[in-house]
Amino acid sequence: MRIVVPAGGIGGARFLRGLRAVLGTDASTEERTTDSSITVIGNTGDDITLFGLRICPDLDTVMYTLGGGINEEQGWGRTDESFTVKEELAAYGMKPTWFGLGDRDTATHIVRAQMLAAGYPLSAVTEALCDRWRPGVRLLPMTDDQVETHVVVDDGQGRRAIHFQEWWIRHRAALPAEQIVSVGAEKAEPGPGVLAAIAEADAVILPPSNPVVSVGSILNVPGIREAMAAKTVVGVSPIIGGAPVRGMADACLSAIGVETTAGAVAEHLGSDLLDGWLVDEADAGTGVEGVEVRSRPLYMSDPAATEAIARAAVDLAVELAEGREDRG
Amino acid sequence: MRIVVPAGGIGGARFLRGLRAVLGTDASTEERTTDSSITVIGNTGDDITLFGLRICPDLDTVMYTLGGGINEEQGWGRTDESFTVKEELAAYGMKPTWFGLGDRDTATHIVRAQMLAAGYPLSAVTEALCDRWRPGVRLLPMTDDQVETHVVVDDGQGRRAIHFQEWWIRHRAALPAEQIVSVGAEKAEPGPGVLAAIAEADAVILPPSNPVVSVGSILNVPGIREAMAAKTVVGVSPIIGGAPVRGMADACLSAIGVETTAGAVAEHLGSDLLDGWLVDEADAGTGVEGVEVRSRPLYMSDPAATEAIARAAVDLAVELAEGREDRG
Repeated sequence: MRIVVPAGGIGGARFLRGLRAVLGTDASTEERTTDSSITVIGNTGDDITLFGLRICPDLDTVMYTLGGGINEEQGWGRTDESFTVKEELAAYGMKPTWFGLGDRDTATHIVRAQMLAAGYPLSAVTEALCDRWRPGVRLLPMTDDQVETHVVVDDGQGRRAIHFQEWWIRHRAALPAEQIVSVGAEKAEPGPGVLAAIAEADAVILPPSNPVVSVGSILNVPGIREAMAAKTVVGVSPIIGGAPVRGMADACLSAIGVETTAGAVAEHLGSDLLDGWLVDEADAGTGVEGVEVRSRPLYMSDPAATEAIARAAVDLAVELAEGREDRG
Repeated sequence: MRIVVPAGGIGGARFLRGLRAVLGTDASTEERTTDSSITVIGNTGDDITLFGLRICPDLDTVMYTLGGGINEEQGWGRTDESFTVKEELAAYGMKPTWFGLGDRDTATHIVRAQMLAAGYPLSAVTEALCDRWRPGVRLLPMTDDQVETHVVVDDGQGRRAIHFQEWWIRHRAALPAEQIVSVGAEKAEPGPGVLAAIAEADAVILPPSNPVVSVGSILNVPGIREAMAAKTVVGVSPIIGGAPVRGMADACLSAIGVETTAGAVAEHLGSDLLDGWLVDEADAGTGVEGVEVRSRPLYMSDPAATEAIARAAVDLAVELAEGREDRG
């Protein structure tokens, strides 16, 4: 079974760990124990250049999480991390100081910056970095072009657009967002292998990533949404009982005028894209026209729970794909 | 009194600390307690680009030593240093692995690389870095142009030129050097302020830095040697009793066919440049034609000893300058 997963950071990465277990890929040997494969289309809209380094938070979170290097407690960054470089940069008066640049993480960014400067596209850089981490999935950036999510805010001194990371980390998404823009998206092309992976996939599974700035950014790259819509697509709601499972997705949703409910997110994603939608038991009864909605526990409280959610998504995808074939 | 000091790394930096004490510049307040000033012309021939970072070992050693950030025991690098970035780069398979890139140090190189990429010359970068370190001297790179010391070696697989750092650190200068070349020197121009500082100086003092790859590199920049030769120049021998005070200057001297003795080094520097030459008591009796040679203890064993050596150099410079005036 070939599955494509458009993923953001923490939620997507954790879900992927469950999905990898379901599909029987052993991360430690990287040998597939089944014929299944997972291709992850990573969000690069959160990427930012700081101190001459290109930082790809979502790609790295997926890579570290699946490669065993993640700080489990916080969900992002490296385990056993230190912040000496960051402190020293601050001592030189370098800005910004709000970005949590760890020492281990810095090495990743140095490798990436050097390869990018040498002319390698981000997809090749990501593949090289994954040579070390062996995540057990194929990790493809959504695009090799520069797409950055910017947020239009009004902090009382007038409206201005700031980088998503500044809004998310520095302002903790507390500054009301008037608009969220994928700068560069309209001219971006899907990264190498992205459309082919979708075309060859048996199903697309949307993990419980931020529907606006993670999954949404990926869908904003021309061609990706259309390619996915031609496939069986099952999504896992990132909203449970009217609140994000984690993170501040509600702030993103309200910026684009979408209610923070499992049903509203599914409708926002659209029945042209979605075939199935998993919601939490708390949201049982949610109905979305043209979408098969199922309810089950959706809290990824431990690896077993996460694996069960992934299995439910795969099962629903198989069921809906078979129905499609029957109808076809 | 205005003194110019062409300096390399460890030996030069320690001597400068003594000289700063003699001339009464208080490093903690950076207020001069006398009218004296020290301009350091820093060797940039050891500079190397690794991992996209521009590393200036001698400038940094001077800056850290005079700014209170040096690892006193080893003489180079930052105190309380860690090597997480280096370990992580190695884990990605990045080469070389022989360079001792510390985490605190990495921040310095990131700042420098970013400013250079933005178009600032090295002299401006150095000034910006010194804003933090406040070394109590004016630190000028010998040139803003790229000059790199390469060493021609024959490791049995044929002759080849390697970067000085590779020879010095990776091979511990044990690979016999056939030639030492300042690549780019012939086209380099003295950095901004260098010739003016020499012209305005009351004396030039050569610290006990490596005479070939530190002081020698600086003298190789067209115009610097000539400007210094017009001044009273007093040198402190880096060779005591036929051996370098520290480091592996003997390997450099034999590469250029100069004996490792205090007298041979003075003759190599030349009586057109040198007016006075301080040698250790062990080398009392050393005679160099056209150069006033004095002997005294030259081991910089502690701050007081170092200060006394610096005072002796200043005193000799004053004495010789007065003699010059009398003759003039």
